[in-house]
Amino acid sequence: MEITENNLIKRLKRFEQKNGRVIRGIGDDGAVVEMAHGRYVFVQDALVEHIHFEFSFMDAVSVGKKSIYVNVSDILSMGAEPLYFLVTIGIPGSISYKEIIDLYKGMHRAAREFNVILLGGDTVETKSDFFIDVSMAGILKNDTYLGRNTANAGDLIGVTGWLGESAHGLHMLKNGKIPGRPCRFIKRYREPKPPYNIWKELMKRGITNAMMDISDGLIIDLERMMSESKKGAVIYLENLPIPNVLKREGKEHFALSGGEDYQLLFAFNKDKLQDFNEMKKSGFHVSLIGQVTRGKGVRILRNGKEVKIGSKGYEHFGVNL
Amino acid sequence: MEITENNLIKRLKRFEQKNGRVIRGIGDDGAVVEMAHGRYVFVQDALVEHIHFEFSFMDAVSVGKKSIYVNVSDILSMGAEPLYFLVTIGIPGSISYKEIIDLYKGMHRAAREFNVILLGGDTVETKSDFFIDVSMAGILKNDTYLGRNTANAGDLIGVTGWLGESAHGLHMLKNGKIPGRPCRFIKRYREPKPPYNIWKELMKRGITNAMMDISDGLIIDLERMMSESKKGAVIYLENLPIPNVLKREGKEHFALSGGEDYQLLFAFNKDKLQDFNEMKKSGFHVSLIGQVTRGKGVRILRNGKEVKIGSKGYEHFGVNL
Repeated sequence: MEITENNLIKRLKRFEQKNGRVIRGIGDDGAVVEMAHGRYVFVQDALVEHIHFEFSFMDAVSVGKKSIYVNVSDILSMGAEPLYFLVTIGIPGSISYKEIIDLYKGMHRAAREFNVILLGGDTVETKSDFFIDVSMAGILKNDTYLGRNTANAGDLIGVTGWLGESAHGLHMLKNGKIPGRPCRFIKRYREPKPPYNIWKELMKRGITNAMMDISDGLIIDLERMMSESKKGAVIYLENLPIPNVLKREGKEHFALSGGEDYQLLFAFNKDKLQDFNEMKKSGFHVSLIGQVTRGKGVRILRNGKEVKIGSKGYEHFGVNL
Repeated sequence: MEITENNLIKRLKRFEQKNGRVIRGIGDDGAVVEMAHGRYVFVQDALVEHIHFEFSFMDAVSVGKKSIYVNVSDILSMGAEPLYFLVTIGIPGSISYKEIIDLYKGMHRAAREFNVILLGGDTVETKSDFFIDVSMAGILKNDTYLGRNTANAGDLIGVTGWLGESAHGLHMLKNGKIPGRPCRFIKRYREPKPPYNIWKELMKRGITNAMMDISDGLIIDLERMMSESKKGAVIYLENLPIPNVLKREGKEHFALSGGEDYQLLFAFNKDKLQDFNEMKKSGFHVSLIGQVTRGKGVRILRNGKEVKIGSKGYEHFGVNL
């Protein structure tokens, strides 16, 4: 079946969701939405085949989910609830109609998990690259946003979930080590669902004052946060939430620089430590991994001793996916 | 100079504009904007090299401008003022650093013309396709949107500016007929600036009740509007605003099916005809080109006689760019 835009729009209308505030959805020059007064967050993040994913490692449903997750992750890390999204897909001749429908299926499923609504977008032909570019709007839970520039000296540093899972999953895929049963590492790589429940609890307790998602690796992303906040940080290696198998196999570096975990990294005032510990006791997976300092840069301590890192990255650990 | 994302972000910060409502701009996981209660319009439209443009026909500054114009056009045609945009650019190895900066220059210039503010976005590597994907938000001027589905039987049909200019410009470029002096046709093709002043006057007078921009050609787009409104239409060929040179050269079909004019097509109640005529007298370039009818489809009349059209398009005129 030929892929025409009119064709697609008709098919895609079945993925349309509405709420009382969507006045005009898919099918016009633009969508119309009624919005209350507030502070809104806008993000836009793309995935490109062969750059951000390979169909040999994940199917179109997972690609669709991931395209939503990476944007939801950015919205959450600003301290906002996701609301609406638009998406442009760039389609080369190599992509089948089924793959496009599967892509939208994946987006639709992921969107439902976060109650974020598809408003429209564009479908364009390309010569060879397949891409998905999602823009998303959310609304701040509180008046203050949780950015990268609001960490204070003395703040503690926390992280959600596990680190290095996604990099290990990709490593397994690249080496053809694909277990028959579902595998948390491969799942994390393919479908890095943001830790929504943990985020909600963090927000409810008002614990964090700076937050970002870990997309490029803990150290690089923490350096970005510290640079924007004009602060430094120390990280306690022994406190990092590293899966046992990574420790056994000497792959702790995946946790530091693997990237794509899409866990949340946050700074919080010491006054909130009790709240933080109560969360942990209630079963929320959060870890205290370091502290914000005056000065510049990120230092890594192993049992109190600084671990040396090279000028070009974290060669001590080696980054070799 | 190597194109790295950090590099680019730093360079691009100089294109950052702010207004009092932008609380956090470029440089975080997302932008934060304070928005008043209202009805907002969201659009997203991409341009892909070799599909939507060729660098042999237009430079990166024009591509940047066009990427903004096509989105502004969608926002205006819903009856909204543009406010904010985000942009993802997909960059293959063939694109130079200068071209990227020129692209942003073009976007910046076009954005200034409409007071629309860059909030952020993404830059991604691609294997071969160069693309620009802009998402844009605007706010409705009135509570009611001007969509494609709100034309009524008996309404008159109007259009802004000239039709066929852009197709003629592209035709000139394809045939190597490039005049030494500035050429309105080539200019329209490269930089189809939406008719903002005419739109403002139409909005001020509350003339229109359905509107869309002409991106794919008058007839196709009018058919879309009528299909969404569940109506039909007649078009008076002799009333179409066709440049004389197109008439002389027998290229009237460019006005019907050429596309990319990005003029506004609108339906309005007969009660507003006086207002419409006053606008014309004041020098606003608008033309009365037809009428909405009951039934289905678009009929074309030349001096009262129906012009036959083939099942696959408007073969009577021939579409041959």
